[in-house]
Amino acid sequence: MTSEPLLVGADIGTTNIKVAAFSPDGRIVAEASSPTPTYYPRPGWAHHDPEELWRCFVAALREVTGQLEDANRIASVAVASFSEAAVPLDGQGRPTSDVIAWFDKRTQPQAGWLDRTVGKDRLFGLTGLSLQPIFGLCKLLWLKENEPDAFGRTATWLNVTDYMAFRLSGVAATDYSLASRTLALDLSRLRWADELLREVNVPAGLFAPLRPSGSALGPVRPEVAAETGLPKGATVAVGGHDHVCGALAVGVVEPGTMLDSIGTAEALFLPVERPLTDPEIGRQGYTQGAHVTGGYYVLGGQYTSGASIEWFRDALGSKHDYEALIDEAENVPAGSLGVLFLPHLRLANPPYDDPRSRGAFVGLSTDAKRGTLFRAVLEGLAFESRSSLDPLLDHSNAARPKNIYAIGGVTQNRLLMSIKATVLGQTITVFEAREATSLGAAILGGVGAGVYADIPSALGELHHAKTVVDPVQDQVPLYDALFRQAYRQAYPALRGLHHAIHRLQETE
Amino acid sequence: MTSEPLLVGADIGTTNIKVAAFSPDGRIVAEASSPTPTYYPRPGWAHHDPEELWRCFVAALREVTGQLEDANRIASVAVASFSEAAVPLDGQGRPTSDVIAWFDKRTQPQAGWLDRTVGKDRLFGLTGLSLQPIFGLCKLLWLKENEPDAFGRTATWLNVTDYMAFRLSGVAATDYSLASRTLALDLSRLRWADELLREVNVPAGLFAPLRPSGSALGPVRPEVAAETGLPKGATVAVGGHDHVCGALAVGVVEPGTMLDSIGTAEALFLPVERPLTDPEIGRQGYTQGAHVTGGYYVLGGQYTSGASIEWFRDALGSKHDYEALIDEAENVPAGSLGVLFLPHLRLANPPYDDPRSRGAFVGLSTDAKRGTLFRAVLEGLAFESRSSLDPLLDHSNAARPKNIYAIGGVTQNRLLMSIKATVLGQTITVFEAREATSLGAAILGGVGAGVYADIPSALGELHHAKTVVDPVQDQVPLYDALFRQAYRQAYPALRGLHHAIHRLQETE
Repeated sequence: MTSEPLLVGADIGTTNIKVAAFSPDGRIVAEASSPTPTYYPRPGWAHHDPEELWRCFVAALREVTGQLEDANRIASVAVASFSEAAVPLDGQGRPTSDVIAWFDKRTQPQAGWLDRTVGKDRLFGLTGLSLQPIFGLCKLLWLKENEPDAFGRTATWLNVTDYMAFRLSGVAATDYSLASRTLALDLSRLRWADELLREVNVPAGLFAPLRPSGSALGPVRPEVAAETGLPKGATVAVGGHDHVCGALAVGVVEPGTMLDSIGTAEALFLPVERPLTDPEIGRQGYTQGAHVTGGYYVLGGQYTSGASIEWFRDALGSKHDYEALIDEAENVPAGSLGVLFLPHLRLANPPYDDPRSRGAFVGLSTDAKRGTLFRAVLEGLAFESRSSLDPLLDHSNAARPKNIYAIGGVTQNRLLMSIKATVLGQTITVFEAREATSLGAAILGGVGAGVYADIPSALGELHHAKTVVDPVQDQVPLYDALFRQAYRQAYPALRGLHHAIHRLQETE
Repeated sequence: MTSEPLLVGADIGTTNIKVAAFSPDGRIVAEASSPTPTYYPRPGWAHHDPEELWRCFVAALREVTGQLEDANRIASVAVASFSEAAVPLDGQGRPTSDVIAWFDKRTQPQAGWLDRTVGKDRLFGLTGLSLQPIFGLCKLLWLKENEPDAFGRTATWLNVTDYMAFRLSGVAATDYSLASRTLALDLSRLRWADELLREVNVPAGLFAPLRPSGSALGPVRPEVAAETGLPKGATVAVGGHDHVCGALAVGVVEPGTMLDSIGTAEALFLPVERPLTDPEIGRQGYTQGAHVTGGYYVLGGQYTSGASIEWFRDALGSKHDYEALIDEAENVPAGSLGVLFLPHLRLANPPYDDPRSRGAFVGLSTDAKRGTLFRAVLEGLAFESRSSLDPLLDHSNAARPKNIYAIGGVTQNRLLMSIKATVLGQTITVFEAREATSLGAAILGGVGAGVYADIPSALGELHHAKTVVDPVQDQVPLYDALFRQAYRQAYPALRGLHHAIHRLQETE
């Protein structure tokens, strides 16, 4: 038996709480998952009970340690989670209220007040974020206004990741990646925006001390070790924001690389050296933040990527023959006989900030059969990626990334990946990295515990199964022409019509 | 046994040659059908062999007479057919060349020459037709140019309907409905446009004498009687243009009524008192002609009506569960959750003369399932009918027709008919008239043979099974708003994009 150390990483997600133990080369040795408990007290509202989140996390940890022959091999624990959700704690570390879910919509008035009081462009200049109700500061202002008693007793505002690490280690801290989603961080200086907080009457001390991701917080507390089966000596380390940890896991840490993470939605994640300063970025729906490895990232993408494929299969294909659909689509010539699909099935994507946009098939003819339409869906997803990426590269003054790495369940659709490589005109490396977010957290834990000397050497040890997908060179000019001369017209052409439809649906 | 007379009507169509024997009240007593023999020597070209057409017609006649207990009850024979196709005959009544099919595209140069020599607007003013290559004069000019020897021997240019009647009776004549599709008839004066013919160097005498539809040409020739089983005494009468005969069969003969004939394509047929004179009519793709009962008609509609339903079933539904699709669509709220379908699957429809237009689904969301899209198809067909009808009513200064009669196989889709009635805001009477075109011809034969005193008394004797479809009153405002505020925008919004797609498809 080997005695190599094991690294535990956790992913507190919207749907599931996942825990996995990894070997230092990135293989999953044990894993567990349970649904994230969430309450929906009224339309648009959602919250979690902090104690219940912790109990679920403990149960998953116990299940993982139970699967191991020797849990004492565990060297470290670190956590990644959704950002924009935090636990308010009193001076004794007890929750003063629930966790408002990251996607909760109750805080629109607070966002409006911040806009009137501080102004969107100033907030962008300071925090690098376009003002949206989901950010931590809006939630804190909501608590102040609506639960003044709880707010009065609140001494610390801890992101969910940080709260889990605090329960594990007894030390409260937050990292830059999660801090950069609070609307309270001075993004270029990487310190809390004290002047802004004074202006909006929020005590600066509420935000936890900033510590780099991968810093050791201390050993697992003895009573937690007993509850979870974790060894007493295991190091708890500072984790980070889930998307960012996923990027770390596949080595997307330097400018010149890009992560294309394709699930229900798709994130295009580009490391950059400095935060972007043009407020137009935010108005176009792009977002940015601090990376877990230092440096920054900008984020584009689309809201209904895998969701478009699921929609087509459900609405128009037969749910059960995904492979048959792909076969049909493969037999259709590139360009789908002139059919184009605009994948705005819920809203538009950056660079268009337009919740009234909708999806469309255009260019239909009697020749277009099911496989034609399905190919058009895949091509539309690829065009939309390019549509979201091109302006971002212009803004960031960045060269097109040399390396594109892709992760996520939807990457198993090899026709989609081939079309994407061809539309983007460059090779895509698809990683089979299941649980990349947990792995990213585990890497940070391994750095904190000294299992790895640093992040670069951690990345050097990982073995990912991967597939290289090359562009179909002789189709590159065709797709380029289709994108430039047709696809780019689709959203602007349909905008007015879709707004009219939106008005009519609302008045109905 | 009754000894009531029987009336034989024929429909020489693009796909089939059909013959039926009717009782004077319009019931089918015997019928036969055989495929129309057509040759496709090169892309865009198509022709028929006149003798072969005749032989197929004879075979169908023989089959019908063979089905009758007493073929001697047959009082009359008359023929309807596609227009824009004719047999060139020499002085002895023998074909000098093939029949160029009505939809053949070889005559584009001749149409271009006519435009340069005479001009579109002058041609419209004289013939009521917008210049298109399919019309008889273009075909005659093609023959003159490309088969000068055959042209030199040609003494008479007989429409296919007229040729069949000539073979039956030995008398060559043509009616106004077919003559009005030759581009050689002075439409308002109902005489051959001799001056125009002189100008383009075509002998005026080539066109057969004009005789009203329903005129008796004479008895069936004895040798034809022997071949076909028709009685020697049966009267051969002047028939007419197929669509127009179909309108006659369901009594659409006077202004204030409209026929909506829905098959693969859809024709909106409105009787008018005088030809319309605004050349804009032609530029918008509308057409007009002489009715078989005197007076005139204008024609709008759409090219892919039933074809859109077939396309959806084939491409996206399961070919075999039409009823299930209709059920699903019935359970979707009016307005299809904001999904709109533009049914330009081959080209645009009047009032847009745009062969580069294409079909589209817009307003898609993840909520739109198969039934939603199918309902959107049906709503799109209804909106497109209104889109084609409204400008026609403006042009003709006509009130909205009081009575709308519908025929055709697609009318069996009762959800479609209900949506159409609601979108048009008025009741539609659906006739179960199968073989309405043959029946229209049979009525003309019956008038020629004196079985009916005149057309009005013929129409008075007919018994059609029919269903009245009323608008769903509380959905009328919703559909009106959707049409005015959204659907009408769809074609203009997509025009540029569809033209770009067309260019890209052409250069591929």
